[in-house]
Amino acid sequence: MLIVQEVAPRDGLQIEPVWVPTETKVALIDALSAAGFTRIEGGSFVSPRAIPALRDGDEVFRAIQRRPGVIYVALVPNLKGAQRALDAGADELNLVMSASQTHNRANMRMTRDQSLAGFRDIAMAVGDAPSAAASLNGTLATAFGCPFEGRIDEDLVMLIVEQYLELGMQGITLADTTGMANPRQVARMVRRVLERVPAPALTLHFHNTRGLGLANVLAAYDAGARRFDASLGGLGGCPFAPGASGNICTEDLVNMCEEMAIPTGIDLPALIALSRTLPPLLGHELPGQVAKAGRNRDLHPAPQDLIAA
Amino acid sequence: MLIVQEVAPRDGLQIEPVWVPTETKVALIDALSAAGFTRIEGGSFVSPRAIPALRDGDEVFRAIQRRPGVIYVALVPNLKGAQRALDAGADELNLVMSASQTHNRANMRMTRDQSLAGFRDIAMAVGDAPSAAASLNGTLATAFGCPFEGRIDEDLVMLIVEQYLELGMQGITLADTTGMANPRQVARMVRRVLERVPAPALTLHFHNTRGLGLANVLAAYDAGARRFDASLGGLGGCPFAPGASGNICTEDLVNMCEEMAIPTGIDLPALIALSRTLPPLLGHELPGQVAKAGRNRDLHPAPQDLIAA
Repeated sequence: MLIVQEVAPRDGLQIEPVWVPTETKVALIDALSAAGFTRIEGGSFVSPRAIPALRDGDEVFRAIQRRPGVIYVALVPNLKGAQRALDAGADELNLVMSASQTHNRANMRMTRDQSLAGFRDIAMAVGDAPSAAASLNGTLATAFGCPFEGRIDEDLVMLIVEQYLELGMQGITLADTTGMANPRQVARMVRRVLERVPAPALTLHFHNTRGLGLANVLAAYDAGARRFDASLGGLGGCPFAPGASGNICTEDLVNMCEEMAIPTGIDLPALIALSRTLPPLLGHELPGQVAKAGRNRDLHPAPQDLIAA
Repeated sequence: MLIVQEVAPRDGLQIEPVWVPTETKVALIDALSAAGFTRIEGGSFVSPRAIPALRDGDEVFRAIQRRPGVIYVALVPNLKGAQRALDAGADELNLVMSASQTHNRANMRMTRDQSLAGFRDIAMAVGDAPSAAASLNGTLATAFGCPFEGRIDEDLVMLIVEQYLELGMQGITLADTTGMANPRQVARMVRRVLERVPAPALTLHFHNTRGLGLANVLAAYDAGARRFDASLGGLGGCPFAPGASGNICTEDLVNMCEEMAIPTGIDLPALIALSRTLPPLLGHELPGQVAKAGRNRDLHPAPQDLIAA
């Protein structure tokens, strides 16, 4: 079993210049839950000026058809965002800090210590909330490499994982934000983190920026990881690599799992059909391959003259 | 150590509609040998009507600057092509048959038995040639899956490998012609073939049609395979999957190896620079990622205001 957390509605859409209407976002999330996803990152509660594409997070979370058993995750940058996400009914708050100090300052305009202090405030607010149902997930961005600093020290990653656990995070995500991880490094890191975090609580978030996305998934899976972020169609770019892929593609991942007989619970034909609705919606092609090539079992007719022969 | 055989001059260029002048092909091959490749598939000696893009194979092979230690491979479909390739100075003849009977008849207009009979004629002619330097490599196309027949029986693959060895082939290539292989299947198949063929004589040829190219390389490498085909920029499409990738991309493969400290002997910056000359030459983008994203170590400057802070 491999759990896929779909992130297209958040990580995928956030850099799209086209405005995707609220009802289209809601329909996408509802189609994803109908296709079998049990975890969907539905939006982010950041400043509308920072990410205008996702300024309707509250409305989206209130309008989705909540399917029992599905965890709807919201990315939140601070206490105010956390409060909005809780009010809108998010089941899980995803908090993000970079392992790289330079990347955290560039991306969050905060030092890592400032980020951690903010997480502490959020953790206390969630603990005090009337509904104690929401859980916390801590994402560690640039956990394998940073476009400014290069390779990230693995002991530093472990130190931050400890800090996350001390803050009461129920889930930990290691994110390869700009696609710098390699399979050997991933296997090593996953084994180390799994000494501290049970497999169901660990998520790997890979980008395919240098073509290693699915190879890294496989290395992580073989090292014991069971939960992975992916984005429909491979939606979501990398600001440091124009033209290169961003997030790993959900249907490519699910297809790999099906071919290797690893259950995901996801309806692959439905997923492919859904992915094929994205290019007309967004006005550009997407990097995902299986939506173009079809599944292995979608056979082609043999040439007629051979059949007759 | 991992040996990369560059196939862009043959498998990459063969379906390009743009005519690439002979001197440009020669310059490409010479740049590849200068970058450290020890095996280059330089062209094919098929009918000029069948593949007009490669009709100048003889001239190309005669004009390249032959670097000592480099094996220049020619794809040949029949005895006449083999004779032309030997006359032009090819070091190795690559003979191709499909594991799938339907695919072989569609692609080669022959049954598998007819293909094998043709290979026997070629093997005898090469054995009788004045220069006995040329070696034979047998490629088994659709070795993992066929777009007409689906999954290929692994015992059938082993049977054809035995037939290839009986014909005196010094090398064997298992080709995933339309990108249907998965890592578990690849590992299993490589382990079986390596019981019959020493690792230096086995080549794996993967396509990235469904995003699994590098994951399959890694699975094959971990199972003991050491030689892989790849195409600069990922040049070379898949006729059954418009828009999807074809051959795995050489610089993405070499980058993966460098990140995992597996030596290839290839100059990655030179390779990336060479790959970046292809889109203007061919008039379209290529699927390779590292030529767009750069290497991990090609760091980006941190934002100025953070450096000043």
